[in-house]
Amino acid sequence: MAIVGVGLIGGSLGLALRRRNLAKTVVGIGRRAESLATAKSVGAVDRTTTVLVEGVARASLVVVCTPVARIAQDILAAAEAAPAGCLLTDAGSVKGSILQQLEGSGAQTGSKKARFVGSHPLAGSEKSGPQHADADLFANRMVIVTPTARTPPADVEQVAELWTAVGAYVHSMSPEEHDRILAATSHVPHLLASLLASGIPVPWWQFSAGGLRDTTRIAGGDPELWQQILLANAPAVLAHLAQFEQHLAEVRSTIEAADVERLTEILALGKEKRDALGN
Amino acid sequence: MAIVGVGLIGGSLGLALRRRNLAKTVVGIGRRAESLATAKSVGAVDRTTTVLVEGVARASLVVVCTPVARIAQDILAAAEAAPAGCLLTDAGSVKGSILQQLEGSGAQTGSKKARFVGSHPLAGSEKSGPQHADADLFANRMVIVTPTARTPPADVEQVAELWTAVGAYVHSMSPEEHDRILAATSHVPHLLASLLASGIPVPWWQFSAGGLRDTTRIAGGDPELWQQILLANAPAVLAHLAQFEQHLAEVRSTIEAADVERLTEILALGKEKRDALGN
Repeated sequence: MAIVGVGLIGGSLGLALRRRNLAKTVVGIGRRAESLATAKSVGAVDRTTTVLVEGVARASLVVVCTPVARIAQDILAAAEAAPAGCLLTDAGSVKGSILQQLEGSGAQTGSKKARFVGSHPLAGSEKSGPQHADADLFANRMVIVTPTARTPPADVEQVAELWTAVGAYVHSMSPEEHDRILAATSHVPHLLASLLASGIPVPWWQFSAGGLRDTTRIAGGDPELWQQILLANAPAVLAHLAQFEQHLAEVRSTIEAADVERLTEILALGKEKRDALGN
Repeated sequence: MAIVGVGLIGGSLGLALRRRNLAKTVVGIGRRAESLATAKSVGAVDRTTTVLVEGVARASLVVVCTPVARIAQDILAAAEAAPAGCLLTDAGSVKGSILQQLEGSGAQTGSKKARFVGSHPLAGSEKSGPQHADADLFANRMVIVTPTARTPPADVEQVAELWTAVGAYVHSMSPEEHDRILAATSHVPHLLASLLASGIPVPWWQFSAGGLRDTTRIAGGDPELWQQILLANAPAVLAHLAQFEQHLAEVRSTIEAADVERLTEILALGKEKRDALGN
């Protein structure tokens, strides 16, 4: 088992696999010796290397946990160097653009040469780095796997088993559906939280209560990672953003018109949707 | 001491005052016998009445904790019926429009006849009703008091003492400044959280993690109360909303242009502002 990128996600996966004796050897592959040393010291990997070709040479399963903008190239490099029959997956927050890059490169995903099934564990934290690795990060969390029409069911099954083995439950959908849904449930919310936070002068923050704290919490995420996610999923993000802007314009007119009834309806719909989620 | 409106805020204030022996008698005034009975049973008030004129007849301090749209009329009625020298305050989330209503009615706030100083405790919860009254609701919370140029300093002092006595710390500013700041730190965030929640189809919620849960938590607030707040503070809400829409349009062009550098800058600013707040 090889893990490319030993940050929070890769480190937590390695830790979960090793604690449960789910892999004979977990090899951690990364670019920075420091992160690799940390991953090893917290018990996330058995051995480490900065040379991808070497790290995947004997792997039967490779999980690419690098930032979204690097995933496709890391998958291609790993697929090239891995033994025949090796299965690859990733942990990226965007799925369609990765596939496009793979296909654009001429790689045939789902073929014997590059068996790849995308994954997206809906787990994470504002924290990052292998020092925060948590063997229970995936426990009771959703992992979305995103086969295409050409992916062999056995490959989907094998990737699903990986995630259920570390405590997650798995839902399968197309990469396009994943990207459309996640734009709404994750990418646009991140953008709004960030804009909300940046629009409030620092001296005003003291005049806020728990509400603003909650609403803007995710704005603390890594700007570089989120920029990659938003741009990799730009079409779906822009589509959901357009819908949001339309709703915002409607609520603005409602307030301008002091339309009590309509404003109450709008807020009641938000409450109804949110209450369905629970705390 | 009379409390008009024994919901979460009024009930918690009564409970805090009684637990600390800060008032000889706390009279709870309300419109619904059921809420009054609950307030009494949880120990928030000594006695109750549905007749405001009777409830404030011997009060030295009246705190109006009714919904924003009712506050001005309740203050006027209480000021009319209370003994000379009685001081009045409220707990509303909007301050300017209440004063305008008081002044429009010919009441002279800050005069001997109607000594009024606005208050806004930045405390609350998605829960409501006296059954959730909490004697520590105001502990270490900010209360903003909003004197005008004509308010006697002694009145401000007396209202500030009320809140510090129940554990809060007090900051004084003009009603206009309060409304401008709270539009940014509370009212617009509520609106955005609500729209965000209502824009996500229910079957998609399962594909979300803690981020969306946090970002939309306040959308669970009472639609009727929030409609009143948003409309009572419409000018400041619309001004901050216009600024937000402008930022949103800018970030949309940034994503359309795939401008990596600018998008990273925008997200980094949000992170910087949010990190200054802490968790």
